[in-house]
Amino acid sequence: MQFEASREYLDSLKTALEVNDDLSVNELLKDLHPADIAGVLDLLGIKYSKNLFSYLDEETSADVIVELEDDTRAEILKDFDADYIVTKFIKLIDSDDAADIINELPEEKNEEIVNLLNKSKEKDDQEIVKLLEYDEDTAGGLMAQEMIKVNINDTVSECIDEIRNQAEDVEKVYSVYVVDNDEHLLGIIPLKKLVLSPPGTMIKNLYGEEVHKVNVNTSGEEVSEIMRKYDLVAIPVVDENNKLIGRITIDDVVDFMKEEAEEDYQLISGISEDVKTSDKVWVLTRARLPWLLLGLLGGVTASMVIGVHEASIQIYPEMAFFIPLITAMAGNAGVQSSSLVVQALAGNTLKEGTMVSRIAKEFSVSFLNGIICAAILLSYGLFFNDSLATTLTISISLLSVIIIASLLGLIIPLFLDKFKIDPALATGPFITTSNDLIGLAVYFYIGHVLYSVNWI
Amino acid sequence: MQFEASREYLDSLKTALEVNDDLSVNELLKDLHPADIAGVLDLLGIKYSKNLFSYLDEETSADVIVELEDDTRAEILKDFDADYIVTKFIKLIDSDDAADIINELPEEKNEEIVNLLNKSKEKDDQEIVKLLEYDEDTAGGLMAQEMIKVNINDTVSECIDEIRNQAEDVEKVYSVYVVDNDEHLLGIIPLKKLVLSPPGTMIKNLYGEEVHKVNVNTSGEEVSEIMRKYDLVAIPVVDENNKLIGRITIDDVVDFMKEEAEEDYQLISGISEDVKTSDKVWVLTRARLPWLLLGLLGGVTASMVIGVHEASIQIYPEMAFFIPLITAMAGNAGVQSSSLVVQALAGNTLKEGTMVSRIAKEFSVSFLNGIICAAILLSYGLFFNDSLATTLTISISLLSVIIIASLLGLIIPLFLDKFKIDPALATGPFITTSNDLIGLAVYFYIGHVLYSVNWI
Repeated sequence: MQFEASREYLDSLKTALEVNDDLSVNELLKDLHPADIAGVLDLLGIKYSKNLFSYLDEETSADVIVELEDDTRAEILKDFDADYIVTKFIKLIDSDDAADIINELPEEKNEEIVNLLNKSKEKDDQEIVKLLEYDEDTAGGLMAQEMIKVNINDTVSECIDEIRNQAEDVEKVYSVYVVDNDEHLLGIIPLKKLVLSPPGTMIKNLYGEEVHKVNVNTSGEEVSEIMRKYDLVAIPVVDENNKLIGRITIDDVVDFMKEEAEEDYQLISGISEDVKTSDKVWVLTRARLPWLLLGLLGGVTASMVIGVHEASIQIYPEMAFFIPLITAMAGNAGVQSSSLVVQALAGNTLKEGTMVSRIAKEFSVSFLNGIICAAILLSYGLFFNDSLATTLTISISLLSVIIIASLLGLIIPLFLDKFKIDPALATGPFITTSNDLIGLAVYFYIGHVLYSVNWI
Repeated sequence: MQFEASREYLDSLKTALEVNDDLSVNELLKDLHPADIAGVLDLLGIKYSKNLFSYLDEETSADVIVELEDDTRAEILKDFDADYIVTKFIKLIDSDDAADIINELPEEKNEEIVNLLNKSKEKDDQEIVKLLEYDEDTAGGLMAQEMIKVNINDTVSECIDEIRNQAEDVEKVYSVYVVDNDEHLLGIIPLKKLVLSPPGTMIKNLYGEEVHKVNVNTSGEEVSEIMRKYDLVAIPVVDENNKLIGRITIDDVVDFMKEEAEEDYQLISGISEDVKTSDKVWVLTRARLPWLLLGLLGGVTASMVIGVHEASIQIYPEMAFFIPLITAMAGNAGVQSSSLVVQALAGNTLKEGTMVSRIAKEFSVSFLNGIICAAILLSYGLFFNDSLATTLTISISLLSVIIIASLLGLIIPLFLDKFKIDPALATGPFITTSNDLIGLAVYFYIGHVLYSVNWI
């Protein structure tokens, strides 16, 4: 029941745009939600999208601009001057979206717009400039100025008048925030309660004092965790003095959560920029190169580690056969344990317990997995008549490597987190590369010891 | 501003519980949100949590049960019989939560409860049984029966009476759904609009006909994508005949999104069950063993691939030095391209374009990355006076392996998706293991060819 831009639809639209068939273009765009029009614009590419944009009325244009992907928006806004952007877009959209869009603009245009807004006499315009000061990933960066607030000394009917006055500006109303004369946040009234109360009821007799709120500097992660935990659709934002300065709605938090999840996913897959399959070849290459270079460095270092044992390999070439097994298992075990820790750190669910107890637990898990894998490998080696020395070397190395790699996967993210570095950096290629090296060193050391023992 | 269960807090609570210091326990639990009490229960472990649970009043108990983690809830519910669970929990919570909890129970207790609910004369109880029939990951599995609906022939004041009547049952009201006499969904009225309309207004003159809705069989992914795209806090659910049968609220979708993101993250890290660091050692071991065994199988197969080239290694032991480089790069390149495709498939953002154009693009990206890495490796080899044959073998292999691994990372998920298998399975250990093998085969084949050419 969602609009789907089928290939047929896009082809008809392209044809209509090419021949300037206004009737067909308007017919094809009729009744589409701004989010869907934005989706179509993103798909069409810059050649058609500017032309299509000219078919939209003023209000729809502004709504569509908000919903576009960053690169499409940048392309379209490039052609408009600062004055046009302010009048036709910034003034028509929510303050949080306005701030996001201004932040994305090239520096020069950004400054021009800030100047225009600063010069403006309208309070709303100046408030957008204030929003620009907050870090994108904080409550301040997520909040909008639009909300319904009511003085504690008002009545329900005055409150409804306020909603009526703001009806145009504040599209989504779920609750009303109660403030004193100095704008301090005192409490909250859900819209449902307001509907059910006689018009003469005093706000002070109606509002609830228990209200979930966040400080303007609270991190985006914490905001989304609070809203998720307490099932909130909106949360008020206050400053250090508990003055009400904004409101965050769940739709923005949902987008934030999605971006965060994608970021973690890209880190673990070794992609260093926020890219998607539709990005340009060069952008995709640049996003993938850094971790490949890390892998290259790791591989060259590994070649040196093995090179030290050249003599062993010439005598026992079987040692070389199992290099991929050792590195693969080190990599897998390390990624498994690091990803669990990173997820626990992100979700703030790293339960009580000391470092020692965590290491002890990880040791148990990796020992169990290691002993099972080593036993299978030992049986395989004995069954296929490989030399006892080789079979023992590989099995013991495998057990050791699984345990060491798992412990490193646990410790490195915790260590990074302690130093306020994103622990997600320690997942993916980073952990596999370092575990490759450590695994190989352990493997050849054990081989060296076992082969030099005369009794096998 | 969120409650944090500090170690001090937990210690005081434990002590108070051990000596049955009711006063202190009640003081420590005072004013806590059910979600926070649930968090504390999850942390305390079963020994204390049952005791603590007995301090909660009936309504709080029911709310806390909903918020608990699955395993804590299972432990606590184990001690209650079916009748108690129905009267004290199921009847007091939202229908969607009730259905989720019943679904989690062991089969026997599940059946007992379904029997009790079937025998009940209350319509609500029977509707919970209906909810049990829907797949967890569909709109039917996410929806609750609780919502406000109003007949098209009613007035605003009748509608407000309906909200008043349902005020207890329907905690969150964002909008009212308009239906005809046969319960067909006709439209929607946002609560804001209701607040601003005179009581005598006819619903038919007030409602909007454009309403986002989903079918009961729509997948959870699609529901969350629709709600995210159109910024909805609730969406009505209809059956095949457009009859209104339920409502999905954004809080449940937020939880669903979080679980989905965690699942994808665990798949790419090679973890096959939904586990967390606090799970038991055996559960963690079981979740990690399958992909380790896959790695083991891959490693043993790799040893056979290399074994075929034993003679080459004895003559050119340098070939062995670069085995980890080849497998690591194959793994990294494959994970990078597969994860981008999997994300695009999940977000439904795989833009228009044919299979050929996708392969051509992936080829360009991997060729660029490959040629940069190969050039670096070539310079390194020449500079450090490695033999020309070795240096050429490794560099050419590296380029080939990066391209092949990247293309496989693109094609395998698309292939799985075509056959309705979760493409996320092709990320992580699966793609690294298969790329290890293919990478090695390519490497030794190129080595074989180049070393046998006399001119180098």
